[in-house]
Amino acid sequence: MTAAAYTGSRSFTLDEPQAAPPQPGQVQIAVAFTGLCGTDLHIFHGDMDSRVSMPAIIGHEMSGTITAVGEGVTGWTPGQPVTVMPTVSCGTCPACRRGNSHICHHLNFVGIDSEGSMQSRWNVPADILVALPDGLPLDEAALIEPTAVAVHDVRRAKVTASDFVVVIGGGPVGQLIACVALQQGARVVLVELDAGRRQTAAGFGIATIDPTERSLVDYVMQETDGAGADVAFEVSGAAAGVNSAVDVLTTRGRLVMVAIHPKPKEIDLHRFFWRELEMFGARLYQREDFEEAVRLVAKGAVPARQMISRVVSLQDVTDGFLALESGGVMKVLVDCREVAK
Amino acid sequence: MTAAAYTGSRSFTLDEPQAAPPQPGQVQIAVAFTGLCGTDLHIFHGDMDSRVSMPAIIGHEMSGTITAVGEGVTGWTPGQPVTVMPTVSCGTCPACRRGNSHICHHLNFVGIDSEGSMQSRWNVPADILVALPDGLPLDEAALIEPTAVAVHDVRRAKVTASDFVVVIGGGPVGQLIACVALQQGARVVLVELDAGRRQTAAGFGIATIDPTERSLVDYVMQETDGAGADVAFEVSGAAAGVNSAVDVLTTRGRLVMVAIHPKPKEIDLHRFFWRELEMFGARLYQREDFEEAVRLVAKGAVPARQMISRVVSLQDVTDGFLALESGGVMKVLVDCREVAK
Ligand SMILES: [Zn+2]
Ligand SMILES: [Zn+2]
Ligand SMILES: [Zn+2]
Ligand SMILES: [Zn+2]
Repeated sequence: MTAAAYTGSRSFTLDEPQAAPPQPGQVQIAVAFTGLCGTDLHIFHGDMDSRVSMPAIIGHEMSGTITAVGEGVTGWTPGQPVTVMPTVSCGTCPACRRGNSHICHHLNFVGIDSEGSMQSRWNVPADILVALPDGLPLDEAALIEPTAVAVHDVRRAKVTASDFVVVIGGGPVGQLIACVALQQGARVVLVELDAGRRQTAAGFGIATIDPTERSLVDYVMQETDGAGADVAFEVSGAAAGVNSAVDVLTTRGRLVMVAIHPKPKEIDLHRFFWRELEMFGARLYQREDFEEAVRLVAKGAVPARQMISRVVSLQDVTDGFLALESGGVMKVLVDCREVAK
Repeated sequence: MTAAAYTGSRSFTLDEPQAAPPQPGQVQIAVAFTGLCGTDLHIFHGDMDSRVSMPAIIGHEMSGTITAVGEGVTGWTPGQPVTVMPTVSCGTCPACRRGNSHICHHLNFVGIDSEGSMQSRWNVPADILVALPDGLPLDEAALIEPTAVAVHDVRRAKVTASDFVVVIGGGPVGQLIACVALQQGARVVLVELDAGRRQTAAGFGIATIDPTERSLVDYVMQETDGAGADVAFEVSGAAAGVNSAVDVLTTRGRLVMVAIHPKPKEIDLHRFFWRELEMFGARLYQREDFEEAVRLVAKGAVPARQMISRVVSLQDVTDGFLALESGGVMKVLVDCREVAK
């Protein structure tokens, strides 16, 4: 088997160990594709060196096929196409006790806190497997994890067909949120500074606005007969994004906080009071989000194929990260399939 | 009749005009009591001179008895005890169109934007009347309006009997929120710096904490087996109050923004994301809140009588405001009943 491992300072090494058989309760997967995301890029940049144990096999947005099942595993058979919901919760912390195990206080995020999918054979606990329908191309299936994030975000906002939705930030997650909200029948506008990303969104059938060219608030007021937006997703991570989200909402409008804001930001609490606005943090996904994401990708309801900007081999993982950091790409996939020698 | 009118720069004048008969659709009330609140104090301080038209008869927390009904008014008869829900909405703005007429964009707040209850006879539109049960003392009934605020806030938070609730700020509204949450069966702690206010709360059966003496977060963690609070009401208006509210909440905990924060405040958005926290603005009340407040005051479920710190006459309204601004009082009522000469 082949594995790429992060070894610090923007470097990966390629290794060819013996594949270990699955332990009891585990399943062995022949990994097909692994997508790279912003968190992986943070690892590549060395920002998470204290969290990952090097050499670190990372990767958590994946697809593959079962090759072997360990002792005691039922319901899974070799040959089945699968993806993985990469979270393992403790079951006993306050979040788990309250039914919010997806944001467990001791969450093991697979691919960061434990071994990930940038390898041709991967053993995982059977209970984090998610079945894929036959015939779903495995490269598209690598988009299921970020789609699950978007599904969770949209569900947190309780988006309905009568809603006007503003998505602030046009990276992969913002684009997917817009697509999922459109699937709910909502009207959607994506706010994005970068012309290339706006063009990508337009290709997905998403209305876009460049807030430096036109006032977002004016645009939304015009589109909503002066009411404002029902829902705003803050996916930009910028202070200006937070302000726009608050300003654009209608009475009792819902702001979903998707982006990571490492430092506290100023927010117009008076407007929250005055218009009875609502804000919801949204992080990761729950099982039902993942299963809905499988359905959406499988039926072509999100543009998974079009979001794949580039595919690199396990040998060329570093190239993939360089493409990601240079911008101008949506998703970069790593082809993790064993090459016949 | 007698009326007290605000004439600017901390002054009121007393006037004895002829009482006007109620217009069509109006009801004339013999006002019994009018409570003073923070907004009235702002007016007294001259902070709202551009909004009120002087000489301004203010006052909106009231009780009284119907003395006459105007043409076309049905369902109300002289002698009935009543209070008034002091809001008139436009019916056509986006808030009204969405069923949120209580925070109408063109809200006429009676007692600020139109004539209030600091007079012995008061004509109001019949549709803002709220019936009082016979036998409810009218001084206690003057507490219904602030109780309705508290009922609305608690309802926005969907407080249940299994919740642990933190109320930050022990003024009248904070005290009433704590009482209403206790009525829901929730466990409640009130956070307050002032010893006198903590003592008042203790007299109402509310647990209190002085955050300068003991860590609020530590206390709540201990009380909730390490989980944190389900609900936090920010009623202090202070930056520290906002931070405490965010820090003390458990996974998916609900923060209700009750206080007015005139300037944007920094808030830990990362914690909103990480713990999937929720925030709800809460302003004024809806009809059902007012009716629930009547029931709560009538059955003695909120300590209306004990909250009345002082009663002044219409002649001595200024004394009432001085007492209010000096602190150390909960509610000051103005006795608006006509005195036999
Ligand atoms: Zn990811
Ligand atoms: Zn847990
Ligand atoms: Zn008031
Ligand atoms: Zn209106």
